[in-house]
Amino acid sequence: MVPEKYDLKTFLRASAKEVDEELDRLLPPAHEEPYVLHEAIRHSIFAGGKRFRPALVFAVGEALGADRARLVTYAAAVEMIHTYSLIHDDLPAMDDDNLRRGVPTCHVKFGEATAILAGDVLQALAFKIVAADERLSSETRVRLITDLAVAAGTPTGMAAGQQMDLSSEGIEISAELLKEIHQKKTGAMIAASARAGAVIARTDKATQDKVAKFAEMLGLLYQITDDLLDVTQTTDVLGKTAGKDESVEKATYPSIYGIEKSRELAGDVYSQAIKELELINNSELLKSIADYVLHRTF
Amino acid sequence: MVPEKYDLKTFLRASAKEVDEELDRLLPPAHEEPYVLHEAIRHSIFAGGKRFRPALVFAVGEALGADRARLVTYAAAVEMIHTYSLIHDDLPAMDDDNLRRGVPTCHVKFGEATAILAGDVLQALAFKIVAADERLSSETRVRLITDLAVAAGTPTGMAAGQQMDLSSEGIEISAELLKEIHQKKTGAMIAASARAGAVIARTDKATQDKVAKFAEMLGLLYQITDDLLDVTQTTDVLGKTAGKDESVEKATYPSIYGIEKSRELAGDVYSQAIKELELINNSELLKSIADYVLHRTF
Repeated sequence: MVPEKYDLKTFLRASAKEVDEELDRLLPPAHEEPYVLHEAIRHSIFAGGKRFRPALVFAVGEALGADRARLVTYAAAVEMIHTYSLIHDDLPAMDDDNLRRGVPTCHVKFGEATAILAGDVLQALAFKIVAADERLSSETRVRLITDLAVAAGTPTGMAAGQQMDLSSEGIEISAELLKEIHQKKTGAMIAASARAGAVIARTDKATQDKVAKFAEMLGLLYQITDDLLDVTQTTDVLGKTAGKDESVEKATYPSIYGIEKSRELAGDVYSQAIKELELINNSELLKSIADYVLHRTF
Repeated sequence: MVPEKYDLKTFLRASAKEVDEELDRLLPPAHEEPYVLHEAIRHSIFAGGKRFRPALVFAVGEALGADRARLVTYAAAVEMIHTYSLIHDDLPAMDDDNLRRGVPTCHVKFGEATAILAGDVLQALAFKIVAADERLSSETRVRLITDLAVAAGTPTGMAAGQQMDLSSEGIEISAELLKEIHQKKTGAMIAASARAGAVIARTDKATQDKVAKFAEMLGLLYQITDDLLDVTQTTDVLGKTAGKDESVEKATYPSIYGIEKSRELAGDVYSQAIKELELINNSELLKSIADYVLHRTF
């Protein structure tokens, strides 16, 4: 259970620390062959990510009564999948980004071939650590792996979203399509993270659906605010190249709706997210995560 | 059980047909969005692969008493992992191949970004279909997923081997290192395929180890004969660019040992493989697979 006076910052810091220790324990050691591959993996994993998805696993799981010890390996897995997707998305053939979280991207530092392999390995390792997590029943593990793979894949998951995002660069797309792209590209994995917390906590299907829907809205909110940050902040503040979206003529919420309307939309999506929490006990922390995501752009 | 008069060609043809039907059933439909990604996946999966790994799953599993219905989904999964690795290995940043199995490689036909995503998706889908295979117990599924992920990953699996292979291009390497690279790059997945057949057949650990060791030797044999084919055959016969290894100064068995010594070595490895089968019942088909791999170069 989440202690009552646990404020959000303390919670986020503690869960980041915990998942980082788990990642360190589960990643191949940097001093083992092939060195360059293992260094590349560790470079990208420990490049200062916010551990948003792991925090969601912990927040949902603990609100619903799961021990942190049963959540931490899945939290590490979801961060591995997320990091693999960033490594591949940053490649020259994809979004061609040189900077991520303020440090050189994986292919800039280690070369393209190693970056491709680092992503590939992180994906395999994510599934492996969940499959081998003896704190969970085999039934829970196969359920988590199925959901995680669907969220990472196609046609409803992350890779499908990235493909649709790439295909829509430089062409005008509808607001509906933009939303669909984001739901797949980022929403699916964020929803899977929240659902996993509920699955590990052994809640009923209705509760799992509610927290997944909350998280999906949260993911959409995150994307809208991310798009807003890209136009309103500098490279220095972001730790990645600012104004990047516009320079590649990428459809974003501000480019379709303008900045003010996008902020309004963020408020609506926030309200929809919060509504899903109505019947969930101990959901104060989840609500404060939504507050945080909403307010980071204002 | 394998019918006694089942000859190797009939067996290989039948298992290829069966796994192809399963792949077709499990892959995302080409007429569903994102089309280009799904077309790319199907292009590479149905580009005329020999289905060697699925055949090994069937051959081992059936020899040890498993129903084909319980083997076919895993067989499809292992082919998905194999195909994903080919798609990524063929990329310009990796081996830069334009032709594979006589048809254009994925990135040549669909672009690099889509090829990267097609590989990523195939890996996720492979784990998903095993996790969701209700013909197997949850315990068996988590065991298979763990082994498969280890075989695909690092430090002992396929991605580690590919990294070490790339790192050794253009430099002279020892025969020991070459063997280690091959064991990781191709041997690990081939061994996992055979072991999975034994796991699904619910045999004891000793039998699982024996068939995995047999398959590892078989994989090494396959690699030696593959290297030999690269120097002795034409592009037309191979369906991929011949003489490619030499042109990129890649270490191969012929380049280290010469052609005659490599053929001798192939014979030794064949004998080691066969020795592992001594205490396995119904292993005639497995032996004939080894015969086939040995003799394809002579």
